[in-house]
Amino acid sequence: MSKPVITIDMGGTMIKIGIIKENILISSVSINADSGNGLRVRLPHIEKAVKEALARQQLSFKDMAGLGIASPGIVDSHQKKILSIDKKFGDAPDINLEEWCWQAFGLPFTIENDARAALLGEWKYGRAKDYDNVVLMSLGTGVGTAAVVEGNLLKGKHFTAGILGGHFVINYKGTICNCGNKGCVETEASTWKLPSIAGENKAYSESKLKSLPSVDYKAVFQLAKEGDLAAAEIREQSLQAWAACAISLIHAYDPEMLLLTGGIMGSGSSIVPYIRNQTEKHAWTPWGNVKVETAVFPDSAALYGMAYLVSNINK
Amino acid sequence: MSKPVITIDMGGTMIKIGIIKENILISSVSINADSGNGLRVRLPHIEKAVKEALARQQLSFKDMAGLGIASPGIVDSHQKKILSIDKKFGDAPDINLEEWCWQAFGLPFTIENDARAALLGEWKYGRAKDYDNVVLMSLGTGVGTAAVVEGNLLKGKHFTAGILGGHFVINYKGTICNCGNKGCVETEASTWKLPSIAGENKAYSESKLKSLPSVDYKAVFQLAKEGDLAAAEIREQSLQAWAACAISLIHAYDPEMLLLTGGIMGSGSSIVPYIRNQTEKHAWTPWGNVKVETAVFPDSAALYGMAYLVSNINK
Repeated sequence: MSKPVITIDMGGTMIKIGIIKENILISSVSINADSGNGLRVRLPHIEKAVKEALARQQLSFKDMAGLGIASPGIVDSHQKKILSIDKKFGDAPDINLEEWCWQAFGLPFTIENDARAALLGEWKYGRAKDYDNVVLMSLGTGVGTAAVVEGNLLKGKHFTAGILGGHFVINYKGTICNCGNKGCVETEASTWKLPSIAGENKAYSESKLKSLPSVDYKAVFQLAKEGDLAAAEIREQSLQAWAACAISLIHAYDPEMLLLTGGIMGSGSSIVPYIRNQTEKHAWTPWGNVKVETAVFPDSAALYGMAYLVSNINK
Repeated sequence: MSKPVITIDMGGTMIKIGIIKENILISSVSINADSGNGLRVRLPHIEKAVKEALARQQLSFKDMAGLGIASPGIVDSHQKKILSIDKKFGDAPDINLEEWCWQAFGLPFTIENDARAALLGEWKYGRAKDYDNVVLMSLGTGVGTAAVVEGNLLKGKHFTAGILGGHFVINYKGTICNCGNKGCVETEASTWKLPSIAGENKAYSESKLKSLPSVDYKAVFQLAKEGDLAAAEIREQSLQAWAACAISLIHAYDPEMLLLTGGIMGSGSSIVPYIRNQTEKHAWTPWGNVKVETAVFPDSAALYGMAYLVSNINK
């Protein structure tokens, strides 16, 4: 019997904390990421939430195998460091998280990119269990991706292989992305870019989007359904951009299955059928069609992936 | 001492035949591909050219380790079949090349995708000898690519991993490609698409390109230098498209080195510095810069790669 694991998914909006025991998420709680102020100020809150979660399960640190964090950005999983991350958690690369983990809990520490962790969770325990060639595309604040090729979770020399699909160029005459590149998938369709995409739409001044305190994809899909012109155009462009990303991922990694996940997935029921249709029509796969599927653990795949890593790190 | 190898690079314009002995190309000859009429009618000519090449070197079949073909398209290197290929060699998937090789020469047969073979040649004997993370981009009739990630030459479940970088979407609102996809790198900048790109340029009617019997990149780069407006615009768009492809390849495979090769490379001395500059500026590589380099064997890397495969197939 393997020891339970503390797992943390460091999202841009919420930080999710879970306890996984015998491959089951027995407890989870989310705290506000408050990520505009960086990660360091959130660490005491994370520590408190972890301790409370353990207490609720009547578990103590010595019962646990370790703690694993799924983080956005580029993560050096060997040195256990965040190398590069969006400015919201801009101080993270300067924090020694392994030391924090040891001092706070006395536990061994593991860290991995969040999309890679989510794919690992679905690959080991979820939708992709029977496949050795899978890509994941997570639609949310950004567009996260990861790839398993011939049974290997791609990491690459500098830990960026597989995870930068959201920064594939899909509009080479496009605008500059947060990452410094031009015309990335994320600059064409992602939650962080959505307000400026909406503001630049020709029909925006006539759109109900204008009256909202903040524009998100839930509103875009809802208003598009109601006939709002700007919302319909943004929905169409976003679906096209995500389909282009999916096709490039298929062309890059030759998967049997494309897993779609992330916060936006709940907003539009048309996303999966649209991407399935486009990949079947346009991806160069003379052997047949890539299965386009949703995650078994849409909210917790990264937690499962980290549990797998913590439990198997020394095997 | 290993036996010499017969290697064939099946290009769209010319079919190159080489003999490689002790890792050196001791003889090579090119015959017209005449690929509009398919591969089957060319096989007797290839057979004759191989026999003549061996005779010139005073070699007989029994001295040889085997024969290897580098082919465009999607190649099943296990079943030794061409699965999907441009219509110029459209009959190739129906030909049993292994049987042909055995009947013509009594030799074991090996086949691989041409860009993958070229990368293998440069990786084992050429520019990328000291690297385990390399991508190759070959600019020619099409845009061929291949990737070595963490010491593995990527093949994928269906033999398409790494080789479809020319079909990454870089203009998701763009036009349909030969492959059935939309806005591929090849539809924005490649020799097969160049005549229609030129014809659609607004300045084409005033351009010297119009008076040429056929438009190629040599003419485009030459006329652009002379101030021809259409040629300068096409040069600029093509460089941008190839740089976008290079950046997406870097984001996909996390290489230390990007190798540039292919027929177009000889036409424009600005290609390497342009792509180097753009990847340094725009690729998300917080660890440093990807080395952008040319091949050591610009004309014969695929031959060297096939020689490696033939010599090592049973090791």
